[in-house]
Amino acid sequence: MSDIIDELLHELQPSRAPTRTKVTIVGVGQVGMACAYSILQQGIASEIALVDVVADKLEGELMDLQHGLAFTRPCVIKAGTDYAITAESRLCVITAGCRQREGETRLSLVQRNVEIFKGIIPQLVKHSPETLFLVVSNPVDVLTYVTWKLSGLPREHVFGSGTNLDSARFRFLLSEKLGVAATNCHGWIIGEHGDSSVAVWSGVNVAGVTLSTLKPNLEKEAHTWEEEIHQKVIESAYKIIKLKGYTSWAIGLSVAKIVRGALHNHRNVYALTTNVKGIHGIEDDVFLSLPCVLGSNGLTHVVKQTLLPNEIEKLQKSARTLREIQQQLQL
Amino acid sequence: MSDIIDELLHELQPSRAPTRTKVTIVGVGQVGMACAYSILQQGIASEIALVDVVADKLEGELMDLQHGLAFTRPCVIKAGTDYAITAESRLCVITAGCRQREGETRLSLVQRNVEIFKGIIPQLVKHSPETLFLVVSNPVDVLTYVTWKLSGLPREHVFGSGTNLDSARFRFLLSEKLGVAATNCHGWIIGEHGDSSVAVWSGVNVAGVTLSTLKPNLEKEAHTWEEEIHQKVIESAYKIIKLKGYTSWAIGLSVAKIVRGALHNHRNVYALTTNVKGIHGIEDDVFLSLPCVLGSNGLTHVVKQTLLPNEIEKLQKSARTLREIQQQLQL
Amino acid sequence: MSDIIDELLHELQPSRAPTRTKVTIVGVGQVGMACAYSILQQGIASEIALVDVVADKLEGELMDLQHGLAFTRPCVIKAGTDYAITAESRLCVITAGCRQREGETRLSLVQRNVEIFKGIIPQLVKHSPETLFLVVSNPVDVLTYVTWKLSGLPREHVFGSGTNLDSARFRFLLSEKLGVAATNCHGWIIGEHGDSSVAVWSGVNVAGVTLSTLKPNLEKEAHTWEEEIHQKVIESAYKIIKLKGYTSWAIGLSVAKIVRGALHNHRNVYALTTNVKGIHGIEDDVFLSLPCVLGSNGLTHVVKQTLLPNEIEKLQKSARTLREIQQQLQL
Amino acid sequence: MSDIIDELLHELQPSRAPTRTKVTIVGVGQVGMACAYSILQQGIASEIALVDVVADKLEGELMDLQHGLAFTRPCVIKAGTDYAITAESRLCVITAGCRQREGETRLSLVQRNVEIFKGIIPQLVKHSPETLFLVVSNPVDVLTYVTWKLSGLPREHVFGSGTNLDSARFRFLLSEKLGVAATNCHGWIIGEHGDSSVAVWSGVNVAGVTLSTLKPNLEKEAHTWEEEIHQKVIESAYKIIKLKGYTSWAIGLSVAKIVRGALHNHRNVYALTTNVKGIHGIEDDVFLSLPCVLGSNGLTHVVKQTLLPNEIEKLQKSARTLREIQQQLQL
Repeated sequence: MSDIIDELLHELQPSRAPTRTKVTIVGVGQVGMACAYSILQQGIASEIALVDVVADKLEGELMDLQHGLAFTRPCVIKAGTDYAITAESRLCVITAGCRQREGETRLSLVQRNVEIFKGIIPQLVKHSPETLFLVVSNPVDVLTYVTWKLSGLPREHVFGSGTNLDSARFRFLLSEKLGVAATNCHGWIIGEHGDSSVAVWSGVNVAGVTLSTLKPNLEKEAHTWEEEIHQKVIESAYKIIKLKGYTSWAIGLSVAKIVRGALHNHRNVYALTTNVKGIHGIEDDVFLSLPCVLGSNGLTHVVKQTLLPNEIEKLQKSARTLREIQQQLQL
Repeated sequence: MSDIIDELLHELQPSRAPTRTKVTIVGVGQVGMACAYSILQQGIASEIALVDVVADKLEGELMDLQHGLAFTRPCVIKAGTDYAITAESRLCVITAGCRQREGETRLSLVQRNVEIFKGIIPQLVKHSPETLFLVVSNPVDVLTYVTWKLSGLPREHVFGSGTNLDSARFRFLLSEKLGVAATNCHGWIIGEHGDSSVAVWSGVNVAGVTLSTLKPNLEKEAHTWEEEIHQKVIESAYKIIKLKGYTSWAIGLSVAKIVRGALHNHRNVYALTTNVKGIHGIEDDVFLSLPCVLGSNGLTHVVKQTLLPNEIEKLQKSARTLREIQQQLQL
Repeated sequence: MSDIIDELLHELQPSRAPTRTKVTIVGVGQVGMACAYSILQQGIASEIALVDVVADKLEGELMDLQHGLAFTRPCVIKAGTDYAITAESRLCVITAGCRQREGETRLSLVQRNVEIFKGIIPQLVKHSPETLFLVVSNPVDVLTYVTWKLSGLPREHVFGSGTNLDSARFRFLLSEKLGVAATNCHGWIIGEHGDSSVAVWSGVNVAGVTLSTLKPNLEKEAHTWEEEIHQKVIESAYKIIKLKGYTSWAIGLSVAKIVRGALHNHRNVYALTTNVKGIHGIEDDVFLSLPCVLGSNGLTHVVKQTLLPNEIEKLQKSARTLREIQQQLQL
Repeated sequence: MSDIIDELLHELQPSRAPTRTKVTIVGVGQVGMACAYSILQQGIASEIALVDVVADKLEGELMDLQHGLAFTRPCVIKAGTDYAITAESRLCVITAGCRQREGETRLSLVQRNVEIFKGIIPQLVKHSPETLFLVVSNPVDVLTYVTWKLSGLPREHVFGSGTNLDSARFRFLLSEKLGVAATNCHGWIIGEHGDSSVAVWSGVNVAGVTLSTLKPNLEKEAHTWEEEIHQKVIESAYKIIKLKGYTSWAIGLSVAKIVRGALHNHRNVYALTTNVKGIHGIEDDVFLSLPCVLGSNGLTHVVKQTLLPNEIEKLQKSARTLREIQQQLQL
């Protein structure tokens, strides 16, 4: 075989596979694979490493992705149970963990997942000490805290997908109501990912027209309207899980967007789970979603939103709940 | 609610949702959804309609895709069990059917699938009489024939994904061996999708250097090498099914590429299942994969490859096998 | 030659070149060509027709674009002095006209350009009676009015690039100050394209945080700040013309974005020159920029912004000035 | 101002602007700017630095590109006459030099350009000792040699755009004749960029069907046909220069494609000017175009094409001509 290569190609120097924008995805379930497929398809990373505990599944997913390479931008894809393949990752996406069961609250999952993370996070840090972490597994807020603790990394390097998808769902539903593209419909869902999330009323705007500044009689109606949309957002994950068994496509696109922003230093604002100590009157090391500026060195800024008193109260209540859970964890 | 919209927006004329590049996908299993996700993500169609018989699953998949719209180009997505939603499709992708079981030959699936197609194809033609058909379900060759017969459409409008993915796998494996991008590694797998497919030796080239013109002693070695790669291609679908239960990602990317070419009139050459009557000495209406030029009016040309006698013989043998199966079908 | 083609290709049916998303660009100066290059490069249209009066220049630009087709998505490109090549356009971009001279006000250009438009607009409508018009030539507001009058089309089908680029410049400068991606910095420049444009204070926000709601002492400072940015926006076109002789790249990208939105029904909001009769107390058929929702059937809605009294006053003053100019035109 | 930023954003850590995929373009004439515009528009680089000797023009081009950033992926753009802004570039594109005059042979330009390069190349190497060089200025072959000599870099790091665009023109013209997408029409123009270039007959193929293997009587006709296309390719640069004064769009797209391949390690094959010593019987350090594999560490392989005796002869003749010119240069 080397004879044929010699006959075909005159070598000037050996090829080199730089790991410039390498992403590791831990967990090759429906969510992890939707993330990998989107990252591959959008040409976001120069290398993707997939890690899981099931060797057969890993090899099957690897082959299935690789066979698509004739249709995508070049990308090196690896898969294996050994964390050595993750070396020099710039970002690790964690989708491993027990899946949320129908009707199960996100918080009830936590204890089962901490033990799993103990086998993952230190391994990743060992092979990529400079990596960023994007936690997707649920309950995402407490698991981002767990990842931060287990990793020993600075708070700016560890964040969760949080309410970024909830915010996208909110914008989609607003967009549907108005017939205006989602890119012009703005609104943030912040706080705890799940039932207790907060839709920030003051920031809901369409092309710069803030709903809360509409005429007094309409403002009330608009607020009711926004609450209905928020309620639909909260229910939608449960509903999709009930209908198809899991959610995958939208979270895959959300994660791909965040990964692109981080690897390519877009400095976009995303609603990400971050350590909120010192913000909105929260004094503990708890992780909740707030709009954050993300660059290639991780989170650089949190946007200081104008919140109503009851919005702050909800955030602080979530913070207390999370702190209590955190205190019961064996890390 | 309409008060708020009136307060926000001054209407000049109502919105209109043109169905300019509408695609229908029948079957929302792993393959159908990988196709839908890729088509959405790559911004290929202005509208996607999903049809299946399981209403719950359909609704879950619809919601999951729609929630991703804040991260993609705009697209209207519909899902339902009623074929009325498919009206005015320019292309219908058929992924419905019984899935290939581990170890099952593609041909053994056929009888189970014909009955299913009888409930699908006439409905689609009724609502979109000008549509093209891209059949993905296996065994793809005979099911493309079945679709052609059931649709009553001209032969240029009905084709199957055939060996397009096999050719991509071949090019990926060649690319891996050489360290040269797959876009510069050329080779066609033609004929029957599956164990009897044919790798066309005369066309295997790297950046225009044809392997069959290498020095005599190397030519033989190169041929052996190409046969090994072809063997791996044949085995790969079986292997992935064994490892992860089904194939999805690569076929999704392959289909997305074909759909893009058809909707946007790329006039690219793809290895597609087509009615080969009158080509390579085949005289019956059977469907096998050959390199075809695809435009927005369907297939316009078949590329006349230079085949070796044993390659032609294999094609003709496949044609005979298929004709025999076709004769036993109740259409 | 046809022998070789017969030997290579087995024809099933002739090729067809559909004109599904055809764009005509009138004027192949720096602006027109930057638009054409961007539309080609981003794969926005299936066909581009270039029209101008200088046949040699046209042929040179045609060849130069066509030779790039090996690096872009497929596109049919035509060029000629005969408007027959524009038939079935869905959108016509008008960049023809005398170029703004250094120091010349936009309004002083108008008289020279009306006569030129009389030779262009009716020809385009004759060959594409359903087309939309996007006017880029300056002074854009009055020339969009002229185009509307000469075309006889409904007001929703005729619009100008207006302050869409001014708004983009505003967002870029805000983004630079803050270190946050321009996609999260929002603000609209509306009204007359040029010295009298209006920056809408109430809508200036960063990721949903409205600057005008900052603490009282900061609000004043923020307003001063926003005015400085607006002043820089106004000066920037003059400055670039002084430095390099013309502006081209940014307007090319702005136009490409608008064209994409129109052809693919994105329903995005752009700051476009539109007939503002009946909005913000203006009672005449004059054209000024306001945020508009654009779909494939043209403008569907104008966003009703919350304007300060002095902002409305400026708009109305521009409207009076434009009406006076319009009354002096010989159409 | 910092008060407002403090009120808006809670800083976790300062922003950082990594120079991961930085490109420098020297020369902001029509070619340089078409390259910059394409690289920006396609989101290929994280940073673009523009260098020239005319400060005013530079500032105008910088502003014009920056104002387009609201419509593109994020990118840091810099411009200046001081080479310090080019630090840490991964690739430097050289478009500076005297422009080819109507009717002027490419080779006659060389003496005027060597002196210019002496002021450019060492400065670039000083600030980016690891950079790759892509020479675009004409006569490209000898100027790539000059760049190699002046830079002191290994031969794999210095290459020219060479006949990559000629090959693209060839493929476009072949594609037009056949009605098949250019991506399926293959053929290489190699050797000297300009009148003496060589079209490699053995590699001309359509979707893998090599024209030189057509039936004997057709082979001759096909060869004549290919020669006509080659003649048109040679004439096209002259013709475009005559018609519009310069070429820009196609070379901008060609360069963008090469830059993407280099920065993102695509390992594609391009026809690039490279040091051909030791290949096809050439024994001197001269630079001619051959199909090369390009990765992020520069050229790794040259494809060994099967050439006819008269093709080899032409290459060797070009090599002798170039060597003679080189010997007369004062480096």
